[in-house]
Amino acid sequence: MTISVTRTDVPDGQAPDGQAPDCERRDSRVPDGTVQYINIGGIELEAGGFLPDVTLAYETWGTLNADGSNAILVEHALTGSTHVTRGDGDEEGWWEQLAGPGAPADTDRFFVVSINILGGCYGSTGPASTAPDGKPWGSRFPLVTLRDSTDAEARLADRLGISSWFAVVGGSMGGARALEWAVSYPDRVRRCGVISVGASSTAEQIAFAQAQTLAIRQDPNFNGGDYYGGPLPEAGLALARRIAHITYRSAHELDFRFGRNAQDTEAPLQADALGDRGRYQVESYLDHQGNKLVQRFDANSYIALTEALMSHDVCRGRGTLKEALARTTADFFIAAVDSDRLYFPSQSRELANALPGDVDVHVIEAPIGHDGFLTEIGQLSAQLREHLLA
Amino acid sequence: MTISVTRTDVPDGQAPDGQAPDCERRDSRVPDGTVQYINIGGIELEAGGFLPDVTLAYETWGTLNADGSNAILVEHALTGSTHVTRGDGDEEGWWEQLAGPGAPADTDRFFVVSINILGGCYGSTGPASTAPDGKPWGSRFPLVTLRDSTDAEARLADRLGISSWFAVVGGSMGGARALEWAVSYPDRVRRCGVISVGASSTAEQIAFAQAQTLAIRQDPNFNGGDYYGGPLPEAGLALARRIAHITYRSAHELDFRFGRNAQDTEAPLQADALGDRGRYQVESYLDHQGNKLVQRFDANSYIALTEALMSHDVCRGRGTLKEALARTTADFFIAAVDSDRLYFPSQSRELANALPGDVDVHVIEAPIGHDGFLTEIGQLSAQLREHLLA
Repeated sequence: MTISVTRTDVPDGQAPDGQAPDCERRDSRVPDGTVQYINIGGIELEAGGFLPDVTLAYETWGTLNADGSNAILVEHALTGSTHVTRGDGDEEGWWEQLAGPGAPADTDRFFVVSINILGGCYGSTGPASTAPDGKPWGSRFPLVTLRDSTDAEARLADRLGISSWFAVVGGSMGGARALEWAVSYPDRVRRCGVISVGASSTAEQIAFAQAQTLAIRQDPNFNGGDYYGGPLPEAGLALARRIAHITYRSAHELDFRFGRNAQDTEAPLQADALGDRGRYQVESYLDHQGNKLVQRFDANSYIALTEALMSHDVCRGRGTLKEALARTTADFFIAAVDSDRLYFPSQSRELANALPGDVDVHVIEAPIGHDGFLTEIGQLSAQLREHLLA
Repeated sequence: MTISVTRTDVPDGQAPDGQAPDCERRDSRVPDGTVQYINIGGIELEAGGFLPDVTLAYETWGTLNADGSNAILVEHALTGSTHVTRGDGDEEGWWEQLAGPGAPADTDRFFVVSINILGGCYGSTGPASTAPDGKPWGSRFPLVTLRDSTDAEARLADRLGISSWFAVVGGSMGGARALEWAVSYPDRVRRCGVISVGASSTAEQIAFAQAQTLAIRQDPNFNGGDYYGGPLPEAGLALARRIAHITYRSAHELDFRFGRNAQDTEAPLQADALGDRGRYQVESYLDHQGNKLVQRFDANSYIALTEALMSHDVCRGRGTLKEALARTTADFFIAAVDSDRLYFPSQSRELANALPGDVDVHVIEAPIGHDGFLTEIGQLSAQLREHLLA
């Protein structure tokens, strides 16, 4: 995917004048796993801003039943898209094995929905979208919280005719979104899967997030966020991704894979001047991770969503954690990767302990760290099948 | 201290023409804890570069005895200086309680020496120093490894008349320097204290180091390293320090101190545009840490020393860890902070296990993380007094 830096595409499912298309006019023949768009109108935001004419991009798989009771919402993580799994097309999704015919989110049985988060760059309104003055939002894009994005998604659910989700599930920021759904809309979430994330972003998570947003903001091309049409702050975004990626992997994983090895024939300890040396393998690996993201993600969206994740706190304005969670009526599935050193299993346990009833923490055993929720899909699928999507 | 960006100070103890002063000419009346300078000549570097006319800055406390047998070398960490402890002046040092009359490094008994690492910015030759062409080294400063800096320090020890150290001790990069001393010069180190660091820099440590050096190199003011005389890459250096500081503290410490609190009256969740919000307390704290370092440290030195630390590997060219360590004849004191998540206690155990003889790992109990080796000086002092400096 390439970034639509100045979004000129008028989505198929959206009227060109920015008006929301009528619900009944939705094309029921849209193939599974195809991006669709809905205009949900303007949103007053928690932090005081306002976004008019908000578009949300989404994909669906399977068929919504007559009483609208079989819908599952799969929430993506920070840089994820709506493409959870392949549909009628061939493109692989980011959580293959989770959704599809016969999968835990069985598309022969469920209507699976995935929504690009508000502020993202996979079709929903974000900083690269066109503001009312015809220019990209850029530096003017407002601060959006996870509650705002949840509210926006509730409107989309209305439009799809889904008054209550059979389940909402996600990992990392996707898990935070799922949890916020269950607490903000207790009547609309019957089961909730919160994977590899706690009840709020901690000081350390905020600290690493700040480093990432600064890496982008200090890129000479950033221009306060108004870089569309000019050179992109790619170096800053790639650095942000490197920092993030280190935290997504365990020290053990990095050392086991790369140790102190040099990259190919490069020589990390040969150089006349400081800047001339060859790379260690782990540096090359992180260069690759950074550069890969730059090809598919907008730097302003990275900031917007990182800020949204910093805002994650189900307790805000709702009392203690126990009090906040007392609002929910959903059955919960909580899971954590045992080696996660960004979203520690202890945070998942704290969440589980504060939830009404007896809630277990399912342990994903993986030495890899946080990303185990993506790589150990086999373990997770089995757990989800048995405990959330039975 | 302010950074001497274009170093024009001609050190007292160094002849103006760059020749090394005669050893006998050293002023024996220099007060304890005063920076002195020695020119140790040119150095061929491990990575292939060459540094002519190298100056090393150092401080001493106490008196070297007649047979030169009572000298202790205290090695500083990444951004440390020679000022370990106060001397006849009043300025507090970075490891107070460790050295002084009656302290573990008892200056009534020992001759305590601290050397600014080659490449640093506290008086030793570094990127801000003047190259033979009269301009600062800047981008031309060569890659210096910990072995190079150890070799340079061995020459300084020669000049001071110290053929063998009673002990060499340090924490973090200081510990890596101490270990390299014991392995490179087994005949010259009788006791060795390696605190909060392992036998080599791991893939994860290299990864975090890369992020930090990139943060500086991507600063618009960096100019490839040739920024002296122009605006300094302060934002990049401050970001590097933020990243480092997160890794120096435990998640528990950050969350316990700051949680999700807002800084003073700032409002992290009030903003029209993304960049306008107030700060979380932990962000303000890291801003402070970053800005503090910028006032006292040169960005190129930060890169040079971070690169030197990346090079840390006592095994390089010496076989297995056991084989490399078999060269040493020193008595070792190994310590680690139990909550350290940058230099894991397991790395200290690996080092201890590979050393000749039975070597324990002394545990510094501190929830703070890596920095515990500085903050828990009480525990460490007692351990050092009993096990290394008895």
